[in-house]
Amino acid sequence: MNIATPKASSDYALNPQDELNDLRMSDKAVPLYEHVKRFIKETVEPMAAEYERLGEGHTDRWTFAPGQLEVLEVAKNKAKAEGLWNFFLPDAETGEGLSNLDYAYIAVELGKSPLASETMNCAAPDTGNMEVLERVGTPEQKEKWLKPLLNGEIRSAYAMTEPNVASSDAKNISTTATLVGDEWVINGEKYYISGAGDPRCKIMITMVKTNPDAAPHQQQSQILVPTDAPGVKILGPMHVFGHDHAPRGHMHIRFENVRVPRENILLGEGRGFEISQVRLGPGRIHHCMRTIGKAELALDLMVSRGLSREAFGRPLIMLGGNLEKVSRARIEIEAMRLMVLKAAKAMDVLGNKEARVWVSMVKAMVPEKACQIIDEAIQIHGATGISQWTPLADLYTDVRHLRFADGPDEVHHMVNGRNELGRYR
Amino acid sequence: MNIATPKASSDYALNPQDELNDLRMSDKAVPLYEHVKRFIKETVEPMAAEYERLGEGHTDRWTFAPGQLEVLEVAKNKAKAEGLWNFFLPDAETGEGLSNLDYAYIAVELGKSPLASETMNCAAPDTGNMEVLERVGTPEQKEKWLKPLLNGEIRSAYAMTEPNVASSDAKNISTTATLVGDEWVINGEKYYISGAGDPRCKIMITMVKTNPDAAPHQQQSQILVPTDAPGVKILGPMHVFGHDHAPRGHMHIRFENVRVPRENILLGEGRGFEISQVRLGPGRIHHCMRTIGKAELALDLMVSRGLSREAFGRPLIMLGGNLEKVSRARIEIEAMRLMVLKAAKAMDVLGNKEARVWVSMVKAMVPEKACQIIDEAIQIHGATGISQWTPLADLYTDVRHLRFADGPDEVHHMVNGRNELGRYR
Amino acid sequence: MNIATPKASSDYALNPQDELNDLRMSDKAVPLYEHVKRFIKETVEPMAAEYERLGEGHTDRWTFAPGQLEVLEVAKNKAKAEGLWNFFLPDAETGEGLSNLDYAYIAVELGKSPLASETMNCAAPDTGNMEVLERVGTPEQKEKWLKPLLNGEIRSAYAMTEPNVASSDAKNISTTATLVGDEWVINGEKYYISGAGDPRCKIMITMVKTNPDAAPHQQQSQILVPTDAPGVKILGPMHVFGHDHAPRGHMHIRFENVRVPRENILLGEGRGFEISQVRLGPGRIHHCMRTIGKAELALDLMVSRGLSREAFGRPLIMLGGNLEKVSRARIEIEAMRLMVLKAAKAMDVLGNKEARVWVSMVKAMVPEKACQIIDEAIQIHGATGISQWTPLADLYTDVRHLRFADGPDEVHHMVNGRNELGRYR
Amino acid sequence: MNIATPKASSDYALNPQDELNDLRMSDKAVPLYEHVKRFIKETVEPMAAEYERLGEGHTDRWTFAPGQLEVLEVAKNKAKAEGLWNFFLPDAETGEGLSNLDYAYIAVELGKSPLASETMNCAAPDTGNMEVLERVGTPEQKEKWLKPLLNGEIRSAYAMTEPNVASSDAKNISTTATLVGDEWVINGEKYYISGAGDPRCKIMITMVKTNPDAAPHQQQSQILVPTDAPGVKILGPMHVFGHDHAPRGHMHIRFENVRVPRENILLGEGRGFEISQVRLGPGRIHHCMRTIGKAELALDLMVSRGLSREAFGRPLIMLGGNLEKVSRARIEIEAMRLMVLKAAKAMDVLGNKEARVWVSMVKAMVPEKACQIIDEAIQIHGATGISQWTPLADLYTDVRHLRFADGPDEVHHMVNGRNELGRYR
Repeated sequence: MNIATPKASSDYALNPQDELNDLRMSDKAVPLYEHVKRFIKETVEPMAAEYERLGEGHTDRWTFAPGQLEVLEVAKNKAKAEGLWNFFLPDAETGEGLSNLDYAYIAVELGKSPLASETMNCAAPDTGNMEVLERVGTPEQKEKWLKPLLNGEIRSAYAMTEPNVASSDAKNISTTATLVGDEWVINGEKYYISGAGDPRCKIMITMVKTNPDAAPHQQQSQILVPTDAPGVKILGPMHVFGHDHAPRGHMHIRFENVRVPRENILLGEGRGFEISQVRLGPGRIHHCMRTIGKAELALDLMVSRGLSREAFGRPLIMLGGNLEKVSRARIEIEAMRLMVLKAAKAMDVLGNKEARVWVSMVKAMVPEKACQIIDEAIQIHGATGISQWTPLADLYTDVRHLRFADGPDEVHHMVNGRNELGRYR
Repeated sequence: MNIATPKASSDYALNPQDELNDLRMSDKAVPLYEHVKRFIKETVEPMAAEYERLGEGHTDRWTFAPGQLEVLEVAKNKAKAEGLWNFFLPDAETGEGLSNLDYAYIAVELGKSPLASETMNCAAPDTGNMEVLERVGTPEQKEKWLKPLLNGEIRSAYAMTEPNVASSDAKNISTTATLVGDEWVINGEKYYISGAGDPRCKIMITMVKTNPDAAPHQQQSQILVPTDAPGVKILGPMHVFGHDHAPRGHMHIRFENVRVPRENILLGEGRGFEISQVRLGPGRIHHCMRTIGKAELALDLMVSRGLSREAFGRPLIMLGGNLEKVSRARIEIEAMRLMVLKAAKAMDVLGNKEARVWVSMVKAMVPEKACQIIDEAIQIHGATGISQWTPLADLYTDVRHLRFADGPDEVHHMVNGRNELGRYR
Repeated sequence: MNIATPKASSDYALNPQDELNDLRMSDKAVPLYEHVKRFIKETVEPMAAEYERLGEGHTDRWTFAPGQLEVLEVAKNKAKAEGLWNFFLPDAETGEGLSNLDYAYIAVELGKSPLASETMNCAAPDTGNMEVLERVGTPEQKEKWLKPLLNGEIRSAYAMTEPNVASSDAKNISTTATLVGDEWVINGEKYYISGAGDPRCKIMITMVKTNPDAAPHQQQSQILVPTDAPGVKILGPMHVFGHDHAPRGHMHIRFENVRVPRENILLGEGRGFEISQVRLGPGRIHHCMRTIGKAELALDLMVSRGLSREAFGRPLIMLGGNLEKVSRARIEIEAMRLMVLKAAKAMDVLGNKEARVWVSMVKAMVPEKACQIIDEAIQIHGATGISQWTPLADLYTDVRHLRFADGPDEVHHMVNGRNELGRYR
Repeated sequence: MNIATPKASSDYALNPQDELNDLRMSDKAVPLYEHVKRFIKETVEPMAAEYERLGEGHTDRWTFAPGQLEVLEVAKNKAKAEGLWNFFLPDAETGEGLSNLDYAYIAVELGKSPLASETMNCAAPDTGNMEVLERVGTPEQKEKWLKPLLNGEIRSAYAMTEPNVASSDAKNISTTATLVGDEWVINGEKYYISGAGDPRCKIMITMVKTNPDAAPHQQQSQILVPTDAPGVKILGPMHVFGHDHAPRGHMHIRFENVRVPRENILLGEGRGFEISQVRLGPGRIHHCMRTIGKAELALDLMVSRGLSREAFGRPLIMLGGNLEKVSRARIEIEAMRLMVLKAAKAMDVLGNKEARVWVSMVKAMVPEKACQIIDEAIQIHGATGISQWTPLADLYTDVRHLRFADGPDEVHHMVNGRNELGRYR
């Protein structure tokens, strides 16, 4: 009676022979992968140094410094010319058709270099917005917004999070859109709308409540709102640990009777959550992929610093528990890498929906562990670790915010935990 | 032969009757404690709100906004008039003569309100500098620098940390001072010199190497360097997670043949480490005291937020492991509070030197645990937690930097660990 | 609107002057404290070595080995003669009248030596049982059971936990007692009844359900059940990590129509939970007090071992992160010690009921942290750490079981977390 | 000058196309894998239940209970007849020639069922001993010892660890073997010699020091010592958290002038460490493989229990942070599984020597994380979790001891950390 009798199959590994366990990059992706790595080293990094140099002393913070956009455009054109462009789009006519797995390997590299993604038109939130438009946009919507986005001529934002509700529960969305004649009239407040301060940002995909009387998951819609629509009031930039990331910014926006044409709705009324499925799976995993690169960079900095500075007669890295911290960081990075690759492969093999629990697993796992690694890299640097002299502070604040962006860790653990329970029914 | 036979007395608690275990505030400190709490609520907090309002839109970042210093001075004068002034100085003729223990209770309150310490002339690094001057300064040094500091007329900096060496080992200091005629000629580089950007900052106590051929702990001296001395080059502000804290700043400074009179040396050649003992003990524990207040504030915000927002039909605070996080935070705060009180009492009863291991214990314990509590408070706030809308991001970056300021956690664990081993000899 | 505005007073420290913060042992307890320490060293430890020697090779495991009880009795009589007897009982005519605070200092010492408590008649579960009888027993109950317990002539058990329900929620108790004529007829199953295998164990205080139709907290009663009552079936010993702790044991017992006189009920029908309040507060904190001693012993062993063994040319304690582990253990032990002292003082000053949240705090804090310290002491010992050659394995399993005995950590965190929320109403 | 410039390639993933990243079981192993799973369910588990039943009440603890060996032999013969035998041996004529990767999938299953490995002659330490004999044994040694081992007729032990030195540094070995005439004369002490209490154990591979004047890594040799050789004194069983695991045992043995023929040396004088490389790589990873199965079993029990018991009106698994613990356990298990598979594949592709750092990574990662998962499963079970009613206590003590067996975690972190530093040279 008291004897332990577990009731579920414990065979979580599915079939060990399953394609899911083949985490090799495909042959066809190798040239692109090698090309991207070379391009980052030879083109992006020198451009980024120049870009940063141009920004020094620039005081009109909500514009780019003279010359910055120009050097960026040169690099973008070079990327486009070399075919290193829009390759994030999986399995579509308009992109390279990379599998999620192949993209994962590349995205790790993108994560190590702050301007790499944008240079190759693979930067969030444009990636998610383009993917959504490509999948569910009407021909007119595609012509007007997807085309210039794919060309890298404009940028975009995703207006989802609201300041006045707990957005960990997406059903809480309170911004409303009401159909008045042939126009949607939008009222409400959004914040942390990343990139909306960028003068090149022209369009926002905006999550709104259109059908308050429908079932809880069918009340929401997504609507295209041009940034220059009357009534779009940018209240100011939100800070990230004291930093406003001007001139791109994470804006706090009020929608005051903003009017957009009826046809700006995506897919149809009440289908907002459905569209989220399109963007969130890949978006979440892209973040994790890049985060592996960031953790790798942090470990690299930790070891380099620890070998080059001495205290008490020995290199820092040999003092106390530092070497064990290096080992633990390496172990966790390799474990995260394999988990992200597996989640990517699951999306390729099982589809986004079936792979959902794998995505939740890596989303809950990777930013938290990466934060710890970056934090330890900071510690070994002392004050330099939180300064502008290493990328560590930016890496930290960036990865820290991922622990609640696109669903907080806690919600992903809830999804994953419930999935586990579900195996017992 | 193999039986475990520990060799040390395990009686770490010393005498249970010892005065060390009486952690009550003294009777005479109560009126001051109550007064300070009232003053923070009634004077400092409204002033701080006004101060912040005045700063909005101010663009000349390395000056104070018009009116800011004026409202601050009004509050400072009120504090002075009410006798809430310089009470940090322990057991000295010039201050209230508070014990470290009594000060600890008050400092917890100071830690909750960013301008409270400065308003009552109890802000770092002035506190440490005043304490040093009061203990080891010559009558001329006191007249010239201590007096205006005690009056709150000027501010000061402490130039210790260097960018090019591992400063966890203080013997690594490389800035030199050479006696040429009747002047010290100083060359070298310092960074993260907090407050040195403040236009009111007039004097820096600077750690230099004067006697490179002496024994390792007798090569260093501390010298008074006016901020306007020729050759003091402010290279720029160091960032703290992307924030430069203008206009006070944490400056990067180059000393290029800076000349100061011979009599600007404190205490004498080769006595730099000796002076550090004066400032570091109290300084480290003051940080810990205020950090308790910050952790308390973070927990307060965590609970307030968790009770006021709902997701999935329940207040956030009741979801998943959140309530347990609240409990763990409370337990750790109370444990930290008792440890800090005990360390303060140890300084009162045993003296700074004998209490050194207690100070190392709390210095290694408090910032690390407080960071975790603040981090959890951030998580429950979502994006708002890292924004400018709560003090949490500032609390985090402030307390995070304490994990390496005044000796990194690792060095304090080394001190404490070695003390433990010492009990076995 | 979005500005953080915590609503609760954050003044958790109550009045800093409060007696609560005076953690000194009282003058009058000092001689006892010193006497107990001396007695443990001079009498208990040699006796324990002899006791262990006598047990070697003894094969009839559910009896004591010849001579074991005799040497124990000699030591008990010596303790009694010297007045080191029953001093656990707080504020009562029958004991030393030690405050909880004074007892805390002594209990730390008791925790370091396995037979110390029993030798001085201060061993669980007798302590709780005696306290309950002393507080709520009738004169007849006291004469029959309390007197021989206070004399150390018999031992007792506390039959609370049941195998078939989640006992973290005490309302789940399912063993029934029905009044039939002048007798209670008891049916049900209990397990982990510690000490019930000891041939000297004569009485069990048994938690039963008597009033299934009453309000949830008034359905339970506590009844005195002699171990030799017909129908008390000892099904066998429960193991603790593979160990059965014969001959004392943690027994699995079935009550099959066990009949005891009506007057064996304690206090009255439906007052079972009320009685629990009497025993649980002190019982929980006694465990924590002794656990400090166990953690102290583990650290002592960790350092002794680490200093005496070498690998890779250095003492183990100087390798990798070991010294930091020592430091962290010392910090946590001192923090736990202060928290336990404060909880004890809170019971003295505020009474058990008001001090309840302090007890929950230390109950959730101490066993978990002590387990980690013991575990690290094990690790530095290698295989010897889990062997019979050090007390570490016993310390670990003993302290590990405290994490769910008398309420699991999770329930204590719930109590403490809810108390924190309660401050916001 | 201060700009962060990491010096190492961060390309730890090697070639993403590399065969190393293909973690699929081979086609040819699938039937065996399925057969083993079926055999465990249909044959081993019923046999194990019978075996346990036969042991009840058996008092002569250092013998098997009547019938136990018989039912085990029946199952072993069935396994042999069905070809489920000795399949642990990789790439050898005498076994199935399973790759490490294929074996990993199977070993996870073996780890869930205590008698499964032995039934299929894949149990440690026989596996390591057979592998060593097969690789380096002379024809005579193979005939005498390998043959009966491969047939499952005898069992064996590995006498490595010594009680009087820190065995984390294998160079500390102090047992000596001196050549006297044609015999090795062995003196010294070993402990935790697992299986040496088993009456079927006939041979011990014993690590000794033969060449004290040679270079540090060439002083040791391995010698075959029959358990019945005169002078082999079994001093007694070592306990594991109070458990002696009779009748197999972990014996404490003294070698008193034990004489064995000169030809009993393996491979040659001074080659003891060389032989260790043969056994330790696979041995360490086999432990990790089985540990994945144990962690999986613990999670299974945690969820089953949490769903079946209620407190405070809800299933335990839905209370507090329990669901998050389930999620974290699942994430860590999947991460560990992928890391172990990758380490196994590395051994297949790169060879044991090049794969060494992968083995150290999983050896340092898996037991520690598995302990945490098992510990949490215990906690949700309450007292039942440490009882004999679930396998959890055995799982815990078994996996806990792995944290120092075959090199403590700390040494594996050192190996891995140094490897990381090595990439910077």
